[in-house]
Amino acid sequence: MGRWEPDARGRLAKAALALYAERGYEQTTVAEIAKRAGLTERTFFRHYADKREVLFAGSGELEELFVRAVAGAPESVATLDALTAGLDAVAELFADRREFARRRHAVITANAELRERELIKLASLAAALTDTLRSRGVAEPAASLAAEAAVAVFKIAFERWIAPAEERPMPELIRESLAELKAVTSGA
Amino acid sequence: MGRWEPDARGRLAKAALALYAERGYEQTTVAEIAKRAGLTERTFFRHYADKREVLFAGSGELEELFVRAVAGAPESVATLDALTAGLDAVAELFADRREFARRRHAVITANAELRERELIKLASLAAALTDTLRSRGVAEPAASLAAEAAVAVFKIAFERWIAPAEERPMPELIRESLAELKAVTSGA
Repeated sequence: MGRWEPDARGRLAKAALALYAERGYEQTTVAEIAKRAGLTERTFFRHYADKREVLFAGSGELEELFVRAVAGAPESVATLDALTAGLDAVAELFADRREFARRRHAVITANAELRERELIKLASLAAALTDTLRSRGVAEPAASLAAEAAVAVFKIAFERWIAPAEERPMPELIRESLAELKAVTSGA
Repeated sequence: MGRWEPDARGRLAKAALALYAERGYEQTTVAEIAKRAGLTERTFFRHYADKREVLFAGSGELEELFVRAVAGAPESVATLDALTAGLDAVAELFADRREFARRRHAVITANAELRERELIKLASLAAALTDTLRSRGVAEPAASLAAEAAVAVFKIAFERWIAPAEERPMPELIRESLAELKAVTSGA
């Protein structure tokens, strides 16, 4: 990417979110996003496959980071501890993105196709974590259940993190969510 | 429904599944389903809104039964026990449907739109259970986490139930799945 487009990717994402909020996701075109960002359509397509991709570009990174941390946890640790290592790793991703995430969430909630895409993303994460646990020697159905539980912990922590007025950082909310899951499943 | 159409609903479902498996879901028309069942299109539409509905007609019933059992559990029981009452209630639904469920699953797996619909169904179930737990006085994030965990237990038990060569009944697989979740979250 050329030096004449500093942070083109970030500017495009910001412009897209602003337009989705103002006009609605369906009504916004790539041409308008590029214009708002002061860039060309061609530049847009160097960074994103389409306008939906702007909203989901982070999912691949999140999944990769999560899986890598689980796969890299010491062999000796319990399944839940390996997953906790993954949760801790992804929590770091969310440090400065709360306002962006809130706006993104509002856009997604308003559109059925985007809500479905969000569900697919979480299902894909659960499948990837299941595979990773199996590679670590975890048997079924424990691998699938542990993966689904970890995704639930992430999902609920994320929903709380973007809730209006919530100020606690993601790592704290993930720890809280994990503690609640343990309490619930232990019959508390 | 007229007496001249005994079990029209069941015959339509069976005919639809057979055609989806033979020709593919996309290529099958309502006219063909009705013809195969020896019924009219008009009769089809008295029972199902469209050809997709044949595959998902049971979801509403399942959600209703699950929610009712959770809502009806004694006030004094722990959250997990209330959810277990719901899981036990829906397990009964699956008594004689394994072959139908296996064929249905094969059709759904082969089609992206249907896989999304299946994910939406599970998300809807989790949301309904969350609301039910809140009504029972369970605070957040415990309500959401417990609901997501119960849906995961159901989902994994169901996937095992329809696996080739699996013969154990659904109630047993649900209990196994629940026990595994407890083991995993307790750090076993």
